[in-house]
Amino acid sequence: MNTFGHVFRITSFGESHGRGIGVVVDGCPAGLQLDRAAIQHELNRRRPGQNKITTQRKEPDQFELLSGTVDNITTGAPLAFMVWNQDQRSKDYDHIAQQFRPSHADYTYFAKYGIRDHRGGGRSSARETIARVIGGAVARQMLARACGMEFRAWVSQVGEIDYPGWPAAFILETEDQKMVRCPDPATSTAMVEAIKAARKAGDSLGGVVSARVASVPPGLGEPLYHKIDAVLASAMLSINATKGFEVGSGFAGTRMRGSTHNDAFYHDQDRVRTRTNHSGGIQGGISNGEDIRFRVAFKPTSTIMRDQESVDADGNSVVVKGKGRHDPCVVPRAVPIVEAMAALVLADMWLLHRGTRMP
Amino acid sequence: MNTFGHVFRITSFGESHGRGIGVVVDGCPAGLQLDRAAIQHELNRRRPGQNKITTQRKEPDQFELLSGTVDNITTGAPLAFMVWNQDQRSKDYDHIAQQFRPSHADYTYFAKYGIRDHRGGGRSSARETIARVIGGAVARQMLARACGMEFRAWVSQVGEIDYPGWPAAFILETEDQKMVRCPDPATSTAMVEAIKAARKAGDSLGGVVSARVASVPPGLGEPLYHKIDAVLASAMLSINATKGFEVGSGFAGTRMRGSTHNDAFYHDQDRVRTRTNHSGGIQGGISNGEDIRFRVAFKPTSTIMRDQESVDADGNSVVVKGKGRHDPCVVPRAVPIVEAMAALVLADMWLLHRGTRMP
Amino acid sequence: MNTFGHVFRITSFGESHGRGIGVVVDGCPAGLQLDRAAIQHELNRRRPGQNKITTQRKEPDQFELLSGTVDNITTGAPLAFMVWNQDQRSKDYDHIAQQFRPSHADYTYFAKYGIRDHRGGGRSSARETIARVIGGAVARQMLARACGMEFRAWVSQVGEIDYPGWPAAFILETEDQKMVRCPDPATSTAMVEAIKAARKAGDSLGGVVSARVASVPPGLGEPLYHKIDAVLASAMLSINATKGFEVGSGFAGTRMRGSTHNDAFYHDQDRVRTRTNHSGGIQGGISNGEDIRFRVAFKPTSTIMRDQESVDADGNSVVVKGKGRHDPCVVPRAVPIVEAMAALVLADMWLLHRGTRMP
Amino acid sequence: MNTFGHVFRITSFGESHGRGIGVVVDGCPAGLQLDRAAIQHELNRRRPGQNKITTQRKEPDQFELLSGTVDNITTGAPLAFMVWNQDQRSKDYDHIAQQFRPSHADYTYFAKYGIRDHRGGGRSSARETIARVIGGAVARQMLARACGMEFRAWVSQVGEIDYPGWPAAFILETEDQKMVRCPDPATSTAMVEAIKAARKAGDSLGGVVSARVASVPPGLGEPLYHKIDAVLASAMLSINATKGFEVGSGFAGTRMRGSTHNDAFYHDQDRVRTRTNHSGGIQGGISNGEDIRFRVAFKPTSTIMRDQESVDADGNSVVVKGKGRHDPCVVPRAVPIVEAMAALVLADMWLLHRGTRMP
Repeated sequence: MNTFGHVFRITSFGESHGRGIGVVVDGCPAGLQLDRAAIQHELNRRRPGQNKITTQRKEPDQFELLSGTVDNITTGAPLAFMVWNQDQRSKDYDHIAQQFRPSHADYTYFAKYGIRDHRGGGRSSARETIARVIGGAVARQMLARACGMEFRAWVSQVGEIDYPGWPAAFILETEDQKMVRCPDPATSTAMVEAIKAARKAGDSLGGVVSARVASVPPGLGEPLYHKIDAVLASAMLSINATKGFEVGSGFAGTRMRGSTHNDAFYHDQDRVRTRTNHSGGIQGGISNGEDIRFRVAFKPTSTIMRDQESVDADGNSVVVKGKGRHDPCVVPRAVPIVEAMAALVLADMWLLHRGTRMP
Repeated sequence: MNTFGHVFRITSFGESHGRGIGVVVDGCPAGLQLDRAAIQHELNRRRPGQNKITTQRKEPDQFELLSGTVDNITTGAPLAFMVWNQDQRSKDYDHIAQQFRPSHADYTYFAKYGIRDHRGGGRSSARETIARVIGGAVARQMLARACGMEFRAWVSQVGEIDYPGWPAAFILETEDQKMVRCPDPATSTAMVEAIKAARKAGDSLGGVVSARVASVPPGLGEPLYHKIDAVLASAMLSINATKGFEVGSGFAGTRMRGSTHNDAFYHDQDRVRTRTNHSGGIQGGISNGEDIRFRVAFKPTSTIMRDQESVDADGNSVVVKGKGRHDPCVVPRAVPIVEAMAALVLADMWLLHRGTRMP
Repeated sequence: MNTFGHVFRITSFGESHGRGIGVVVDGCPAGLQLDRAAIQHELNRRRPGQNKITTQRKEPDQFELLSGTVDNITTGAPLAFMVWNQDQRSKDYDHIAQQFRPSHADYTYFAKYGIRDHRGGGRSSARETIARVIGGAVARQMLARACGMEFRAWVSQVGEIDYPGWPAAFILETEDQKMVRCPDPATSTAMVEAIKAARKAGDSLGGVVSARVASVPPGLGEPLYHKIDAVLASAMLSINATKGFEVGSGFAGTRMRGSTHNDAFYHDQDRVRTRTNHSGGIQGGISNGEDIRFRVAFKPTSTIMRDQESVDADGNSVVVKGKGRHDPCVVPRAVPIVEAMAALVLADMWLLHRGTRMP
Repeated sequence: MNTFGHVFRITSFGESHGRGIGVVVDGCPAGLQLDRAAIQHELNRRRPGQNKITTQRKEPDQFELLSGTVDNITTGAPLAFMVWNQDQRSKDYDHIAQQFRPSHADYTYFAKYGIRDHRGGGRSSARETIARVIGGAVARQMLARACGMEFRAWVSQVGEIDYPGWPAAFILETEDQKMVRCPDPATSTAMVEAIKAARKAGDSLGGVVSARVASVPPGLGEPLYHKIDAVLASAMLSINATKGFEVGSGFAGTRMRGSTHNDAFYHDQDRVRTRTNHSGGIQGGISNGEDIRFRVAFKPTSTIMRDQESVDADGNSVVVKGKGRHDPCVVPRAVPIVEAMAALVLADMWLLHRGTRMP
């Protein structure tokens, strides 16, 4: 079940401390000139060790393209990408070979498979999201060319610090903004400080990523069980550490009344528009042409630098020691992953609706 | 795309004002004695007109079983169920034949298909959830026999009124509790009053359904893209009027620190348990044996008894009149639907893990 | 696994002696005006009791449309069809309730499911092909409108009697031709005689159905694992009683040399054509614009009017008596089924390639 | 659509003259000790240049395992394999960059994708079958451990030379037998001579591969549209150069009568057996415990060393020159590919029936 999508789809493989992470991107229409720098740019945004508030694992994360193009043009054949691991320190994980780290997938993988790759979390590591970012980067290029669709996510909450805005566009200018990926400079600085403080305390923080997709043509989405919002929800909840998803007005909208929540229609030139966008660009599971808006909840990182009560595979009570490199808050690095998954969903919807030929 | 699930799956058909709603339940193991009364009981919980706070459309919603059993025992063949429509009043919808009702699927269906069944919302009507409730009822019976799994949902919020509890068990005793499906009598009464007031004002309310799944064996779930929580999310967001999903600590958990959010493991007899359940019973997308806990956000009903600004299919500005029977708050009737979708997800996961033979 | 197809797909249900046979046709583009008479015409071609050489079970096989249209135009919603059973004689099957009829699916269904619907073969009955014929009839209408694609099959062998022709068009004029569906009058008469003789002897015959699909645009087919010929093969082998499939030159082509087998290309006006068509219209799994040609092998009917050695579910040796109504040769009635399955395959390929909107 | 299978599934990528051929094997149960030598052995059987009657392209075809194991034990994570290309001679193909070789996929890929990787056939090259052979080798190991299932194929026809036997077991002893993979020494010698003669004449031959699968437990197969024989048919027709498939009695069985074709049941100890096996081990799409028997037709190789009439992408008539390395008859090297595809089908059926845990 390592495949996502129906027509535009990715199949991922690889582990945190194995040879590397790979992805097969299948269903990309032929005739697309691949922008390799743009793919690498997305990987760089996801890359560990990129700044002071991320894990210190050093990985260049340069991709290799193994198939699917002639002269850098897609041929309709599956594109395969590989990112080789370089900075594994598997012995950092020897102490937990038999232990189940709290709120990690150690115990459940053991329960399911009867065997566990404990080195860096094995397959359950967020390192797998490399595959998603690559696949999403291809999807974005395809959609940009097809209809100019654009994906933009940002950090809207870190711990208790909120950025409530919903900007149509923004530029990350300050160092803190660049680190934490929040549109507001002052909030960014507060977020960076909070993350540093958590790290210093051997602790971790959660947060929220908000996203908007612009230039979505009306009519995409496959009711009833593959509504855009339903598939977006599954895409987001398949990302490590996510605990929630909301679209448009979300949980806050449950406290509104219909008379204020409903999005009135009007004509703007020859386009049907809505006065408000509580629907988040999706009605009945189908895009209405407004921006798609959604938010994704991330729990505080499970890896903390503290002793924790747990058990091992032999039925003993143990104390798990805090070790290993990690992000004290995964939310900033999650931004390109959220964008990538959204792009994969929309690419699939586009191709289902319009067919597998490049427009 | 009217099929949900991989191995245990439903395919639904039918419209609000057509002949009726049907569902094919495929993949149910052979040898299950169908409890027809239990299926009808779930339909009755979903049924319109069951009390003063629901729509006044009168539908007995008695199902007919068209295939799949011999002497009421499943044979492995697909089960098909039909519920015939009886109380359509299609002319109630004549006034919106060309109009797009705000925040309904009228415009998007038109944009996608170029044609629209305006009578009662056609295919986009929540009447389709009959198919889900039937499929879920079969799934529950299968899982109950296979491993004693149990599904229990309730209303935890209506408008501004919250019920924050997370009860292991509860009984609906008062009339208000039965109407609104909230575990607490006083809160139930407040919720009923709020719904009545909204109806009187020609307005509508949203709310939240909370759910727990008990007796889930560890090891179910198919990483990476079919994690239980990811598939639950898509199942819930495929229900009409939903705007959000959260599992375990959800959005609130994003404000916690890892040191308090992590669920410590311990041994309880020969079972691995967790001290807290912020994970919501799922870690790395796989069940850990604790209760699965999640919440689903529903927007205020789009149908309101007020004039609303909109446009029609010919490019005119129009005023949509408030007409037609509807629920001023869909949340109480959503309870059995949420349970049903959860049961469909878990049945699929069970069969993938254990094979398609009845245990 | 009662669903066939990816985008244009059917889900079937129902048993030989249950309430009836139904099918959900999902993915049909909106805006298609359904020709109901054409659907009924295909059912009539498949219908039992239509003449002297078919089973004498009397079924009018009139379909009911349960969903998916407004004013007979498809809306994009799933179309559901039902054909109610009328002439079941389940008691005819009481004698085999515990017996496994040789070369039927009695034993394997029992081995798989541990339970068996013995009445008329239950789900394994060829009566299920009603669902295929209906789905195929819709697919044909969609493809006819989209690109003028045409499906034409005929009987090319009954027992030892061959009709080796490969006609571009033909009319069934004589009574024997109409009964046996062979393009040649004299051969048809011989085939009818052979079938009657087999029936008189309490025995049965096999045969071959040949088919051509015309006006197929080049470029349909999804390599590598969903090549048109691969999916056609699975479609045909999923029909009851089939034992083989060949495309283009088929098994005979294995005895040719490349220099004579290769299909030379040439230009005919602005179209690329081939001088011969040993490829059967498919190269590398993709249509090349020539007619798709294939043949399907059907074994002699398993039901015969003779005593046969067998066993029962309790481990006893038994003699199975020949009883029940049946076709002494299924090949004539298989013609519309083969056409229908081919149409389903091509409709799926068309929509994948061109998108789910009606052209 | 480069994925095959539902639960046990392969996703392949790579081209004839690209970096290499890769495959992701997903769904293999955890806990299987991989026999790497056995995988390599299957690749060696498929390898080009292995003897005088195959193409002279020299490829060692050593695989690299990129993911999915710990200490050579599968973890339930996807297994990824890579075979790097080494002996590409892309300039051999410069002369056909714009030409469409008769009966190759050149024209159809161009028609579908508007672009073509002409070097060695690109994605349509039989070099892709490396992916199948690797996936099949893993499937075989899983099935051997699960239930002792065994796969054995052989060459039963080359051009006009037939080997009609259906041996339960055989050993390839003579050099000719080993080259051509036919159970009979004398027939093997005749086949080798025929292939050499065809090569000398610049021509090519077709043939047939026969196969049996032994120790298949009764009850595998997913009716109605995923019958074992239906899925086997699609698996085989997805292999390059195949034109036909037959199971059990096949096309020959169409000339038999029911009274001789039916397979009588009897008890052999506590097993239900059949006296004959015209059903080919499958009844109603489900295994009955007898050997599964089938045959696959391969056309004569399209690449021949002769001038051929054709057209190019610019609309010109051209003469295609015979160049490039190739097999004058693909049938001997197809034997491990046929076995591999059969293993993939049965592994999928096994896991669907028994669940995704290693027995």
